[in-house]
Amino acid sequence: MEIQKLVAQIKRKKSFLCVGLDTDLEKIPPHLLQEEDPIFSFNKAIIDATHEFCVAYKPNIAFYEAYGLDGWKSLEKTMAYLNDKYPEQFTIADAKRGDIGNTSTRYAKAFFETLNFDAITVAPYMGKDSVEPFTAFENKHTIVLALTSNEGAYDFQTKIVEGTELYKTVLRTTTTYTNADRLMYVVGATKASYLKEIREIVPNSFLLVPGVGAQGGSLEEVCQYGMTQEIGLLVNSSRGIIYASDSTDFASAAGAKAKALQQAMEAQLKMYL
Amino acid sequence: MEIQKLVAQIKRKKSFLCVGLDTDLEKIPPHLLQEEDPIFSFNKAIIDATHEFCVAYKPNIAFYEAYGLDGWKSLEKTMAYLNDKYPEQFTIADAKRGDIGNTSTRYAKAFFETLNFDAITVAPYMGKDSVEPFTAFENKHTIVLALTSNEGAYDFQTKIVEGTELYKTVLRTTTTYTNADRLMYVVGATKASYLKEIREIVPNSFLLVPGVGAQGGSLEEVCQYGMTQEIGLLVNSSRGIIYASDSTDFASAAGAKAKALQQAMEAQLKMYL
Repeated sequence: MEIQKLVAQIKRKKSFLCVGLDTDLEKIPPHLLQEEDPIFSFNKAIIDATHEFCVAYKPNIAFYEAYGLDGWKSLEKTMAYLNDKYPEQFTIADAKRGDIGNTSTRYAKAFFETLNFDAITVAPYMGKDSVEPFTAFENKHTIVLALTSNEGAYDFQTKIVEGTELYKTVLRTTTTYTNADRLMYVVGATKASYLKEIREIVPNSFLLVPGVGAQGGSLEEVCQYGMTQEIGLLVNSSRGIIYASDSTDFASAAGAKAKALQQAMEAQLKMYL
Repeated sequence: MEIQKLVAQIKRKKSFLCVGLDTDLEKIPPHLLQEEDPIFSFNKAIIDATHEFCVAYKPNIAFYEAYGLDGWKSLEKTMAYLNDKYPEQFTIADAKRGDIGNTSTRYAKAFFETLNFDAITVAPYMGKDSVEPFTAFENKHTIVLALTSNEGAYDFQTKIVEGTELYKTVLRTTTTYTNADRLMYVVGATKASYLKEIREIVPNSFLLVPGVGAQGGSLEEVCQYGMTQEIGLLVNSSRGIIYASDSTDFASAAGAKAKALQQAMEAQLKMYL
């Protein structure tokens, strides 16, 4: 998907919400377990109930791989459903992949071609020749982990490298890579105040911001420090939306949560655009 | 697998060879493409021809994911075959995964339980709570990327963090994690001389060394700087073995390459043990 289409969708829906499909058989409503493919049934209902309030879906691949072949089937069906019924949605494989050249190309093909995702998250540790195989794909987007929202982020990401935090070195270095205009970045919302400095390094890149809500981030702060003329933000919510209810009303409960977030985003968009 | 069993196997076979199953439909002998599952047929023949010369197999998961559902099936069959016929082999999922807590646990279950691998490679960028969910599994091994053998390794891994290279910070920091005795490390053989300093930080840990041969590393140097009393080394070769021939003799050609490496390793073991 061209970035302009994503921006147009955001402006039309007055939402920059990404719904995380971290679908877990132990957390979905028990009545769904009788279905032939409970994961897909859950995802389908969640997507139908939330699509008008969000612009992107982000399945975390771990949740599918955990179920082996069955999980992979559920993921394929989910992506086929999204691509067929809601082609305007921006789809992100939260895979956090990263390997050397030729092997990264394999991952890129798996997610960009076989599954037809618009974007994938990648880890930066292996550097240039682990990221560029992903950015080689036109109209596909590579979302590099910069500053994550977990406690372990302080182990390495915030350590000082040549006078500046490692995550800033990651931002600066990756902007020199080939097709850097196809890069986006993961920036945890629990560190919203860091966004000001991040915007000095990547003033225009889209940021995928997890951790608003459940992990304690504030939407207001994220917008204050992170929003650009072309919005430049995708704010993700997973558990807060998809597990809003564990009963038969789970889909409408998820829709209500997504709508509430969309309305909060609409209020922010009015202030900044 | 207990580490003692791996060490005993190494001593018995006089080999610390790991065969990388980077199986690629574009590179396997064309006559196999008529088989129902060419990837599994190839792997099975390679395993049968090489198992007596090696102690470990390492499928790079990207090569399987690239083929979607079919690739996942081939991986499941390969692992079932290994676990059934050659249970002494140490199996490594070269997946380079890494995510937050609960999600890393999903990946750990996928590879340690669903597929029954002995070990998995993980990326360190997200820190403690992305690694410890893997080390929580008893008799399973978590192989952290420290210093990789690609050019991009110089982007971040060798940058100076608080007076020392980032990869050394990764080594030092991870040794403080819970169940650190279940950690191993990836160290690229193209930088064999670095092994001396690495051994000062992790004197006993097993190191998975890719890049001997194709990527220019020297077995002699790796042993000189990296070998411990309990060997502490797994040296991987992928393409050099599995694509030794693209004709009907591919399996015996792979066996011969594996045997040659085993013999070189036997010579080294005699010198150091």
